[in-house]
Amino acid sequence: MEMLEKAKDKIMMGAERRSLVMTEDDKRLTAYHEAGHTIVGRLVPDHDPVHKVSIIPRGRALGVTLFLPERDRYSLSKRQLESQISSLFGGRVAEELIFGADAVTTGAQNDIERATELARNMVTRWGLSDSLGPLSYAEDESEVFLGRAVTQNKEVSVKTAESIDEEIRSIIDRNYQRTRDLLVANDDKLHVMAEALMRFETLDSDQISDIMMDRPVRPPEESGNTSGGIGSENRRKPASLPATEEVPQT
Amino acid sequence: MEMLEKAKDKIMMGAERRSLVMTEDDKRLTAYHEAGHTIVGRLVPDHDPVHKVSIIPRGRALGVTLFLPERDRYSLSKRQLESQISSLFGGRVAEELIFGADAVTTGAQNDIERATELARNMVTRWGLSDSLGPLSYAEDESEVFLGRAVTQNKEVSVKTAESIDEEIRSIIDRNYQRTRDLLVANDDKLHVMAEALMRFETLDSDQISDIMMDRPVRPPEESGNTSGGIGSENRRKPASLPATEEVPQT
Amino acid sequence: MEMLEKAKDKIMMGAERRSLVMTEDDKRLTAYHEAGHTIVGRLVPDHDPVHKVSIIPRGRALGVTLFLPERDRYSLSKRQLESQISSLFGGRVAEELIFGADAVTTGAQNDIERATELARNMVTRWGLSDSLGPLSYAEDESEVFLGRAVTQNKEVSVKTAESIDEEIRSIIDRNYQRTRDLLVANDDKLHVMAEALMRFETLDSDQISDIMMDRPVRPPEESGNTSGGIGSENRRKPASLPATEEVPQT
Amino acid sequence: MEMLEKAKDKIMMGAERRSLVMTEDDKRLTAYHEAGHTIVGRLVPDHDPVHKVSIIPRGRALGVTLFLPERDRYSLSKRQLESQISSLFGGRVAEELIFGADAVTTGAQNDIERATELARNMVTRWGLSDSLGPLSYAEDESEVFLGRAVTQNKEVSVKTAESIDEEIRSIIDRNYQRTRDLLVANDDKLHVMAEALMRFETLDSDQISDIMMDRPVRPPEESGNTSGGIGSENRRKPASLPATEEVPQT
Amino acid sequence: MEMLEKAKDKIMMGAERRSLVMTEDDKRLTAYHEAGHTIVGRLVPDHDPVHKVSIIPRGRALGVTLFLPERDRYSLSKRQLESQISSLFGGRVAEELIFGADAVTTGAQNDIERATELARNMVTRWGLSDSLGPLSYAEDESEVFLGRAVTQNKEVSVKTAESIDEEIRSIIDRNYQRTRDLLVANDDKLHVMAEALMRFETLDSDQISDIMMDRPVRPPEESGNTSGGIGSENRRKPASLPATEEVPQT
Amino acid sequence: MEMLEKAKDKIMMGAERRSLVMTEDDKRLTAYHEAGHTIVGRLVPDHDPVHKVSIIPRGRALGVTLFLPERDRYSLSKRQLESQISSLFGGRVAEELIFGADAVTTGAQNDIERATELARNMVTRWGLSDSLGPLSYAEDESEVFLGRAVTQNKEVSVKTAESIDEEIRSIIDRNYQRTRDLLVANDDKLHVMAEALMRFETLDSDQISDIMMDRPVRPPEESGNTSGGIGSENRRKPASLPATEEVPQT
Repeated sequence: MEMLEKAKDKIMMGAERRSLVMTEDDKRLTAYHEAGHTIVGRLVPDHDPVHKVSIIPRGRALGVTLFLPERDRYSLSKRQLESQISSLFGGRVAEELIFGADAVTTGAQNDIERATELARNMVTRWGLSDSLGPLSYAEDESEVFLGRAVTQNKEVSVKTAESIDEEIRSIIDRNYQRTRDLLVANDDKLHVMAEALMRFETLDSDQISDIMMDRPVRPPEESGNTSGGIGSENRRKPASLPATEEVPQT
Repeated sequence: MEMLEKAKDKIMMGAERRSLVMTEDDKRLTAYHEAGHTIVGRLVPDHDPVHKVSIIPRGRALGVTLFLPERDRYSLSKRQLESQISSLFGGRVAEELIFGADAVTTGAQNDIERATELARNMVTRWGLSDSLGPLSYAEDESEVFLGRAVTQNKEVSVKTAESIDEEIRSIIDRNYQRTRDLLVANDDKLHVMAEALMRFETLDSDQISDIMMDRPVRPPEESGNTSGGIGSENRRKPASLPATEEVPQT
Repeated sequence: MEMLEKAKDKIMMGAERRSLVMTEDDKRLTAYHEAGHTIVGRLVPDHDPVHKVSIIPRGRALGVTLFLPERDRYSLSKRQLESQISSLFGGRVAEELIFGADAVTTGAQNDIERATELARNMVTRWGLSDSLGPLSYAEDESEVFLGRAVTQNKEVSVKTAESIDEEIRSIIDRNYQRTRDLLVANDDKLHVMAEALMRFETLDSDQISDIMMDRPVRPPEESGNTSGGIGSENRRKPASLPATEEVPQT
Repeated sequence: MEMLEKAKDKIMMGAERRSLVMTEDDKRLTAYHEAGHTIVGRLVPDHDPVHKVSIIPRGRALGVTLFLPERDRYSLSKRQLESQISSLFGGRVAEELIFGADAVTTGAQNDIERATELARNMVTRWGLSDSLGPLSYAEDESEVFLGRAVTQNKEVSVKTAESIDEEIRSIIDRNYQRTRDLLVANDDKLHVMAEALMRFETLDSDQISDIMMDRPVRPPEESGNTSGGIGSENRRKPASLPATEEVPQT
Repeated sequence: MEMLEKAKDKIMMGAERRSLVMTEDDKRLTAYHEAGHTIVGRLVPDHDPVHKVSIIPRGRALGVTLFLPERDRYSLSKRQLESQISSLFGGRVAEELIFGADAVTTGAQNDIERATELARNMVTRWGLSDSLGPLSYAEDESEVFLGRAVTQNKEVSVKTAESIDEEIRSIIDRNYQRTRDLLVANDDKLHVMAEALMRFETLDSDQISDIMMDRPVRPPEESGNTSGGIGSENRRKPASLPATEEVPQT
Repeated sequence: MEMLEKAKDKIMMGAERRSLVMTEDDKRLTAYHEAGHTIVGRLVPDHDPVHKVSIIPRGRALGVTLFLPERDRYSLSKRQLESQISSLFGGRVAEELIFGADAVTTGAQNDIERATELARNMVTRWGLSDSLGPLSYAEDESEVFLGRAVTQNKEVSVKTAESIDEEIRSIIDRNYQRTRDLLVANDDKLHVMAEALMRFETLDSDQISDIMMDRPVRPPEESGNTSGGIGSENRRKPASLPATEEVPQT
């Protein structure tokens, strides 16, 4: 039973990559980053529940927070989309609060891309912006023909492009601020969860609940994984850093 | 005879996909969405009549409202086009009225695309906008050559592009508002039809008429399908959601 | 002789397609549309003479007005070009005058494209605009190379693009207005010609002359076709309507 | 000797195409058009001398004015370039002066293209504009690579593009005006030369000189052709007219 | 052991190319350029330590400053990125301070490209700009399809493009100024290090430390190399100069 | 020895093409043009020395001024770049001073292209403009992929594009003005050198020095060529003139 659970986790979260040598500082940064995702995901409304959070490197990711929906999703509400955007910023905001603005890293690149993409689709495809209205401003992707879109005239005007940019920015800013407010108000939990991650490397749903309830964190053996289904994750990937050269070790 | 009728419906509406597990909440949202299309389609002038409305998932659609014209159409009047735009917004507006602005979903993506496309063609191809006049602002699609249009200079100026955007927005906004006014004034019918859909899953033309006339809805066996011809539908498709991973069930 | 005449007409106007089932309303709309083209073509200066007008569907066209020049044309004067633009708008304006602004249809899409194209060429290729002067603003089509124009720098500036748009609009507007004035002043002939088309389906040059002279329309057998040469036509095609599905008839 | 002369003319001017049936009006328009090119070419400074002018259709051209330089040209001065632009407008201006603004034809399309191209090169390649200065604003055509220019950043800014447009317009306008002034002041010669072209169809250098000197035009047999070398011509081609259909003659 | 050390250096820094004939002036310029990189790299916070600096030409580079991180880097902080930008400008600023503004060379082309790229990514990918916020303004490179991006609408608006340009400029300017301040305050070390490079050609970490500590520079044989790992370098490459022709020597 | 010298010159300057028939006027224009390059190249600071100047046509060039650097160049200073721009304008300015503004020719097209390219690179690649700063505004040419640049977002904003245009213009204008001032102040040498070129066709370094020193020009046989290395030339090429037709000579 436990083996089955572990096999499932491996499929969902990716194979561990313990060969990656990380310093205590790297681990601490990752712990606060993932804890930020997790705590915000617990506090915003209608967010998928956290299944697990871990600072064991997997694939290209240094840490993973795995959210799993309770049932299949056929559509997402505006409230759910904004909650996702907020939890995506949990990592960066935690870095900023704990280590200061100059110490925030390139590690949030993927979170920023996904949050921007969600906000863009809200405005240009899903009609979820009051200022832009229920219009589609996105090109129909199926009409690409011979290396260019036949429907080139669908490109929005200069003024509309500016309104779209402003609206995307506005969605991002209000959710970034919400994330900041939530983590400032819950910085005690942030420290506790980061410490727990440093000690246990991985926390499951029950352990996360302990921290959110200000209870002592139960040890891993007392905890069991439960849910299943389709998961969405916030992984902390290293950014595309400027190219460097591998040097053989002596 | 009944078998023939069912075969025809299957061709027109797509094969049912009852394997899709939907919660009561999903069904209720879909019921109000489809009821919104149906009621608005009945109330706007010169709209094709509703043949059937259903909340049984078919293909990628969670629900279907099937409109069938009474005869072949060789051209559409400005009035007919605006009525189509209005009924396309029936689904989103119903969601907004019943569940609130934060609960509206990505499920209207396809309706929004089609409404925007109709409004764009009215302005840029069919000369149906007073402010832009009887000019063609669309590229002639037949002249694409070697991966680009030979007639690149046909691109409109910055100022004209802005006028086109404003006029499309104006057409969308006045029809969205009409749809809202109609559904607010007929919210009793909206509730009744959504309830009937929750109970019967599919309603035919006679049953819809019962609801629009404030008559008790006749049961399915007393109702018979009639018309035929070329149909246009509003299907409620799930949006292109952010990618998630399939997880094996335990 | 009569057979030869019919064979020639078939070549010039396309094969009839009587299988297309049209309602009385469709026919009436088409009759007024084609009558509009015909009457304006007779009243503007230096326009090619009308050879025939018909509301029998041919190919994709619901009706045809066939103009034939009296001799080969090697160039067109500014006056001839504007007369063509005016007659192209005859169909749409007739729809608007008789059936009202909300009832005008997508059927003028092709007329609008051709009128816009003529106006654009007057401004950008033929130096026939006072405000833009005797300059070529169009890309030389022969220089397309490897999927793009080598001469990309020929693209006009933002300000010039705006001037071109304004000048095209001005040419279109003054000819649309001329067409409107002519059809308002000759609405008696519009009604008579539409009625004659409803009765005879096709009118030849002599019958059209009867109507323009306020004489009783001679029956088809008393009329004979004359001219030959290169013809230009205004066909009323159905617009590219939103895709619908064919449904088998029961 | 005469045969040799005729063979040379055929090579230089293209084979005659006497099968083209032209009305007296077509011929008259062409005669004034070519006479306009010829007279302006004689009156502007440093222009290549006229070798021959003809209203016999050749290839796609309805008329030809053939200019031949007295010696090989390795570069052109600003004065020579502007003289060429002026003579290119001789045809259109003659049409306008004699037949009126509404009667000018699409026949100057090619002249307009060439004049615009010369003016554009003066400004963007040859540094011959005071306001734009001795800079190259044209893309280096040799750097096209894989379907696009590698040097995309060379595109000029919005403001510079506007200055280039204004400067090209200014060069065109001042030369169009010079052409107009010259033909108004020499309208007697315009009439005489057009008449001579209507009578003789082709005029050689001596006959043109007779007209420019207000002498009686010598008949063709008394005239002999002289020079040779590299020629530039103004041919009057029919514009790309809207597509029409060939109709078999009965 | 010494051989191993030399082999490692050869792999890290590229094979020496002593055939390149350089004048004393060339060498002096390169010495100050590399000394500028080295000194700034030592003075800005959190910068990777300098492993070696050399003015022996290698490959296309006239000189090399090799920085090596102390451990693997999975992400970079804002502070580290700005320190890299500052050290990249060390070469150009040293040239300017020592030889004057008119004597600065094209040799910093590669440094400028890399500094601009880092600043651009800070603003458009890594969310490290206060004014632009935590948004992604860069196109997702993986979506290129059929020779164009499917997601063409992601292009930022005119106004946003201007903000991005301003923010990149601001990051560059404040780091260029910091570099200038540091080298002005340490111009004594700049002269000493350039002199040492002229004498020894290559300096290792210990020798660089001697100079930074105002100690006499130990000779090469007393110095030993230490670290290893992944290195980043500032090489001084000749710019892409205007094409010249090789001429055989007599 | 003399033969070797001649062979070297042939390689450096291209094979002579004495078959080209040039008038005295053509030769005089070319002589002043090349003398302009040569004199300015001698007077601006840090310019490569002139090796030879000639008005014998070679390849497509009507004249050649050959500059040879004294040693290999690995980078160019700002001062050297501006001196090159100045000498490139020597030809056009000489034409303008001697023959007047209306007589300047298309022959400077290549000089203008090269001067513009140098100024553009100074601003966009080499960080040599105070107003644009040490940033790279040029696209990285190596990233072209599948017919378009992956890094499309690197395109500068409208405002930055305008600043780049203004800065390039400013560099060109100040060097054009310097060239003009130098040739006005040295017009005596301009006349003497052009005369010498008319007489000897080619001048070597010693003869050029004689003219610059106001000494009598030594005859060719008393002069000997010296240097070698990599040369850069200003050739006076005919522009891409409007297409003309070859005419067989009688």
